[in-house]
Amino acid sequence: MSKLTHFNEEGRAQMVDVSGKPETVRTAIAQSSIEVNQTIYEHISRHKVKKGDVLSVAQVAGIMAAKKTWDIIPMCHPIPLKGINISFEWEDGKEGHRQLKITASVKTIGNTGVEMEALTAVSAAALTVYDMCKAIDKGMVIGPTYLVEKTGGVSSKDFKR
Amino acid sequence: MSKLTHFNEEGRAQMVDVSGKPETVRTAIAQSSIEVNQTIYEHISRHKVKKGDVLSVAQVAGIMAAKKTWDIIPMCHPIPLKGINISFEWEDGKEGHRQLKITASVKTIGNTGVEMEALTAVSAAALTVYDMCKAIDKGMVIGPTYLVEKTGGVSSKDFKR
Amino acid sequence: MSKLTHFNEEGRAQMVDVSGKPETVRTAIAQSSIEVNQTIYEHISRHKVKKGDVLSVAQVAGIMAAKKTWDIIPMCHPIPLKGINISFEWEDGKEGHRQLKITASVKTIGNTGVEMEALTAVSAAALTVYDMCKAIDKGMVIGPTYLVEKTGGVSSKDFKR
Amino acid sequence: MSKLTHFNEEGRAQMVDVSGKPETVRTAIAQSSIEVNQTIYEHISRHKVKKGDVLSVAQVAGIMAAKKTWDIIPMCHPIPLKGINISFEWEDGKEGHRQLKITASVKTIGNTGVEMEALTAVSAAALTVYDMCKAIDKGMVIGPTYLVEKTGGVSSKDFKR
Amino acid sequence: MSKLTHFNEEGRAQMVDVSGKPETVRTAIAQSSIEVNQTIYEHISRHKVKKGDVLSVAQVAGIMAAKKTWDIIPMCHPIPLKGINISFEWEDGKEGHRQLKITASVKTIGNTGVEMEALTAVSAAALTVYDMCKAIDKGMVIGPTYLVEKTGGVSSKDFKR
Amino acid sequence: MSKLTHFNEEGRAQMVDVSGKPETVRTAIAQSSIEVNQTIYEHISRHKVKKGDVLSVAQVAGIMAAKKTWDIIPMCHPIPLKGINISFEWEDGKEGHRQLKITASVKTIGNTGVEMEALTAVSAAALTVYDMCKAIDKGMVIGPTYLVEKTGGVSSKDFKR
Repeated sequence: MSKLTHFNEEGRAQMVDVSGKPETVRTAIAQSSIEVNQTIYEHISRHKVKKGDVLSVAQVAGIMAAKKTWDIIPMCHPIPLKGINISFEWEDGKEGHRQLKITASVKTIGNTGVEMEALTAVSAAALTVYDMCKAIDKGMVIGPTYLVEKTGGVSSKDFKR
Repeated sequence: MSKLTHFNEEGRAQMVDVSGKPETVRTAIAQSSIEVNQTIYEHISRHKVKKGDVLSVAQVAGIMAAKKTWDIIPMCHPIPLKGINISFEWEDGKEGHRQLKITASVKTIGNTGVEMEALTAVSAAALTVYDMCKAIDKGMVIGPTYLVEKTGGVSSKDFKR
Repeated sequence: MSKLTHFNEEGRAQMVDVSGKPETVRTAIAQSSIEVNQTIYEHISRHKVKKGDVLSVAQVAGIMAAKKTWDIIPMCHPIPLKGINISFEWEDGKEGHRQLKITASVKTIGNTGVEMEALTAVSAAALTVYDMCKAIDKGMVIGPTYLVEKTGGVSSKDFKR
Repeated sequence: MSKLTHFNEEGRAQMVDVSGKPETVRTAIAQSSIEVNQTIYEHISRHKVKKGDVLSVAQVAGIMAAKKTWDIIPMCHPIPLKGINISFEWEDGKEGHRQLKITASVKTIGNTGVEMEALTAVSAAALTVYDMCKAIDKGMVIGPTYLVEKTGGVSSKDFKR
Repeated sequence: MSKLTHFNEEGRAQMVDVSGKPETVRTAIAQSSIEVNQTIYEHISRHKVKKGDVLSVAQVAGIMAAKKTWDIIPMCHPIPLKGINISFEWEDGKEGHRQLKITASVKTIGNTGVEMEALTAVSAAALTVYDMCKAIDKGMVIGPTYLVEKTGGVSSKDFKR
Repeated sequence: MSKLTHFNEEGRAQMVDVSGKPETVRTAIAQSSIEVNQTIYEHISRHKVKKGDVLSVAQVAGIMAAKKTWDIIPMCHPIPLKGINISFEWEDGKEGHRQLKITASVKTIGNTGVEMEALTAVSAAALTVYDMCKAIDKGMVIGPTYLVEKTGGVSSKDFKR
């Protein structure tokens, strides 16, 4: 059975030693979404054509959060990220709702993967949309949030959902 | 039609002035969950009886993230939180999977609500579980993440899902 | 002669005790600017009509920096800000250059003023414009940066430039 | 028997709810020390008369660390501090060594005490002295570190060592 | 026409992928200044001969801010800095005022330049001088702030003002 | 006589340029301890067998603090850590007290050592134990805190206490 590497001999959590792993190019893509009602959808869309908009704040939030993933997720290694990109797409949701799909792709050169950075980026972006629209409706639902793919590991193989 | 208060006259985002609102006791409860396979479920459960465990790291992560919500969500007000509690519960998931339900309740006395703090806490806790178990399976899915209830607002009424 | 309050009896810096001052509404307005060449001006303006733009990133940067002023300026008190607004205006500069004027207004209820928060906000916004346009020209010049006005002090009187 | 309030019903850590406690003036004084050899002592002393010195960097470090105690100590409440002062004193140590005594006094108005802020301040100041002198000798010893006194609690009585 | 690289295909900001660039030694020097009145000048100078002084706090602030530039400037890459030095020089200003010139030089080995780190360092140092002297006069003016030189790029050539 | 490298030509502190040093594997082990009374000892021990415990929170605190050492210690270089492990051991203390020994070992590949990261980790872990037990007794004493060993330097030789 595979094991949880995040624990030391006393059974306590540790930040696993990755110094023996080679530095390789690592990429990860994660996705989240937030379901909003029609009024919020129109507000966000209408703002799109103006100077500032909900999505551009959300995307700055996602990028900044990715950079501090190591300060949010306790056992996560600090990794100097080389590139982060976040994009948005609207889809139909349930019962007249609209689903905003948020995708983050993260890239680095390092000893360990950037899955957590991509997942943290989409989570922060979704939370920011919630924050900026909650004056209209607090019933928005975030998720599902998941890893879409990752490449570049050495001990672990590439992942594709 | 209600409006997005997070925008100024130029149509750009702002951190809304809440100095005119009275300080009241504010509470918020949010929930998220993460679906894991049977192997991960057993690992997490087995560790429960030992000195350190995945859930206790996740819960520290949730509490620490709640305190820096204002630094993660751009238009969020900095609010000195007075209390944070996070709890976990296992439920059956799809096709032999198990669902870990994460609930955060946050309390403060302030001019504005703590919905974002509760939502950020459960998101960070779920991400931490993902991080600590991803060596076993990267297919875990986080969410749905939503607000369960909030009380204490003055201009906005209480919310209950 | 008035004195530097930021020093203790040993002649070392301290974070002055403000616990004896009453909590009042405090406001501050600060201004900075950045001089850019015609090419950059056109790039920023053209992007304005699109979904994301330099100025909306700069303004998010300004707001987020204002919230962590206490973590950037050593002797600055941590003050939970109640409202922050940042706006932009173009003016003619020297020799075919354009001057982007950045104004931040900050508000709180507290024992001490928010001048530093307003000054930090405009500085971070200007630096962000520099960062996002430096691929075109590194000769941009930031400043002058100054306090425009502040109100709400008790021991110190209101200031107006 | 008194109990550990930092745990919830599941036996997990929580950030205790202090919203029911009154806001009072709170003070705390903590002390640490660092034992250095004669060479380091002379270096630090000699620099004292120059423009920059080890102790002034250490004291800035202590003040800044006190302000982010809530981000370092997981279950600690975020408290907007009102005043922080750090002072230094030399004493004789063992076997030709010198002991630098570091004292921090912290003040706020809040629902909970500032013991952790004072203890974190002296710890960070001592670590900074270590960092700046370790090129000469890595055998320096930090501590003992303890609370000297605290006042202003309501449920807990004043403490004096 | 050269283009703004900080934008993705949707026209939104991104943190540009620099993983393909080689790691080279990078240096940058930036300058800012702050104009103060005669009283402030004398205060700062007098303190210079004591144990703590305005400039040594300002310089710690500049160094610490340089290290967190990536957390202040949204699209800036996190770069582990290898060296930072800040120096000060007094010059005559307008109408009996004095100009404090602040210079920061930053060095690293990395895929991208450290211009923003040097500019952020001098900005934070200038803001700290403002903060510590504002009890005497709030009319101080910061700037101009600009890049003096940078070396070590591969795709972009060296810059010298 | 060896010298303090943390100072520039003006006699002010700097973050020393380490870009010329080779990247090598670096390790450091540090130790601290906290003396607690019998009641606290029993509380901590009893919790050990439950789901959450004081020590697992302390250890998360230590790991997270190690990662932000560069943000706590002013002249410390930012170093992406590769592994951190913290362990605990009980020893008899004075007069019926018990001594909790905290050991942190830190590893990286870099141009400079990780002594400060190990020392910061044990300090934060000890402070967290204090925080979580102070409701029972505020007389706990932290320290001595010291470096046990370090390896991997080039200009400085290995250290062993």
